[in-house]
Amino acid sequence: MAKEGGFAGVIAPVLTPFGEDGSPDGERFSEHAQWLLATGCKALAPFGTTSEANSLGLDERMELLEELVDEGIDPAKLMPGTGTCSLSDTIVLTQHALDLGCGGVLMLPPFYYKGPSEDGLYRYFAEVIEGVGDDKLKVYLYHIPPVAQVGFSLPLIGRLVREFPDTVVGLKDSSGDWSNTAAILAEYPQLEVFPGSEVFLLEGLKHGAAGCISATCNVSATAIRQVYDNWRTPDAERLQGHITAIRKAIQAYPMIPALKALIAHYRSDPGWAKVRPPFTPLPEADAMMVVGTLAKAHGFTLNFAEAA
Amino acid sequence: MAKEGGFAGVIAPVLTPFGEDGSPDGERFSEHAQWLLATGCKALAPFGTTSEANSLGLDERMELLEELVDEGIDPAKLMPGTGTCSLSDTIVLTQHALDLGCGGVLMLPPFYYKGPSEDGLYRYFAEVIEGVGDDKLKVYLYHIPPVAQVGFSLPLIGRLVREFPDTVVGLKDSSGDWSNTAAILAEYPQLEVFPGSEVFLLEGLKHGAAGCISATCNVSATAIRQVYDNWRTPDAERLQGHITAIRKAIQAYPMIPALKALIAHYRSDPGWAKVRPPFTPLPEADAMMVVGTLAKAHGFTLNFAEAA
Repeated sequence: MAKEGGFAGVIAPVLTPFGEDGSPDGERFSEHAQWLLATGCKALAPFGTTSEANSLGLDERMELLEELVDEGIDPAKLMPGTGTCSLSDTIVLTQHALDLGCGGVLMLPPFYYKGPSEDGLYRYFAEVIEGVGDDKLKVYLYHIPPVAQVGFSLPLIGRLVREFPDTVVGLKDSSGDWSNTAAILAEYPQLEVFPGSEVFLLEGLKHGAAGCISATCNVSATAIRQVYDNWRTPDAERLQGHITAIRKAIQAYPMIPALKALIAHYRSDPGWAKVRPPFTPLPEADAMMVVGTLAKAHGFTLNFAEAA
Repeated sequence: MAKEGGFAGVIAPVLTPFGEDGSPDGERFSEHAQWLLATGCKALAPFGTTSEANSLGLDERMELLEELVDEGIDPAKLMPGTGTCSLSDTIVLTQHALDLGCGGVLMLPPFYYKGPSEDGLYRYFAEVIEGVGDDKLKVYLYHIPPVAQVGFSLPLIGRLVREFPDTVVGLKDSSGDWSNTAAILAEYPQLEVFPGSEVFLLEGLKHGAAGCISATCNVSATAIRQVYDNWRTPDAERLQGHITAIRKAIQAYPMIPALKALIAHYRSDPGWAKVRPPFTPLPEADAMMVVGTLAKAHGFTLNFAEAA
């Protein structure tokens, strides 16, 4: 059975727009966040991998989060990424998110040092949780081995869930490996588990997943929400096929620049395409290709009037 | 010909001791730094990989650096690591080091996002250098693909050196691949190149290297300095054989915990063995083994009276 309550639903790791001078653009950011909530997202995970969060500074992350809350977004719907490679910076960001009232945090493992022991990772999370020391803290583990290289083994997840049952309440699995997601769902039914791609949404919901947290929710939350809302109906397979096709068309390009190019196009706002190094913007010809392919093959468009 | 001037010499990436409460111990840190300078190190590279720098917070790094300068260490001899995965935090740390008068900085590439393009990495460094915008800045590129995964290709090094000839002045090569170091030395003779292990010191000096920046300099700087000072003499091969043997005996264990265990033993200060998660301390039996093996096979000891 699909999991309900908590953050269950479709969640976008919110893209981070940058201004002319290269600093994060809080106004475009909160406008995009509100549009996402108005068009299918149950909640938001700002400062995910897709958000270029790891290219942002500590202060930039905190200011952007404050911007979302200041602009009236319910912090209970926010699950900001707070995991850095530094134990102390992770505590700073997590405490800050909690102080703002965020419903949860999405936490990467410390990812600089490779091949850490299970015990070392366990101690890291124990020190973060005890360092914050607040029963309101809800941690969602962020497993993304293709990027972070360091990940969460099944035994590590188990140890954390047993030791901190009221704090470690969920996991995002961006391994891209359905068998890993299925194993976590089977082994730890108490967790809210989110596949990191909507490609696994229907299958996930059938196995008890809570929804999905996926890069492409930044541009196709409405269609993804259709699968979430109708997964028990005869139409589910067709709806899933549609969102899988859109995802595959987008991921033929570098994901973050492609998503930003799509938003820039449909908002008629070229500044939206800006990425922070080490990313580079999608070349103009590729941007036209991804817009054209999606529109032609999948009837894809973005309607920014919807949120108004 | 070996390179002279600049930071040429034996350089230690200074270990970071932690206090009872897990926060960095500035007093033990500066005491160790001064001992290193008194026993063979020409300069220091605090906040390297060996320093567990990537497990430290932004504020912790800046406070520790200030501690070294406050304690009277000549900042011209300091090449702190300032590279993080975030462009803005890297600018903050680099500016701070420059404000303190540091002779150079050792800069990791942004290491979270994997497989960045050469152009993206180039833009990253260009934005950092232009963001700091100070002719006094001297950047040493930090190539350590086994850990950072992201590294510096020969063409990227070339592009940075050509574009910023007065700023990008050196490189530490911790690839562990001598053929890569040799290629950089041959291609860019204007750079101060430091192999990341003293195993390559003699060979490096013969090919124009500036010295070495190596984890094990934390415990064997005096012996490594012997090679540096005598590399043109008939005794050089024997001296190199000695430091290579010590290095190999230590790296049979996890490097950082082993180095800290050695210092804890010879200082009779068990607190020195503390590491920050995700690292775990060397088990007691292993600590006894590494101390015993080094003493028995190589006459290894540490004399902390020397610096007094």
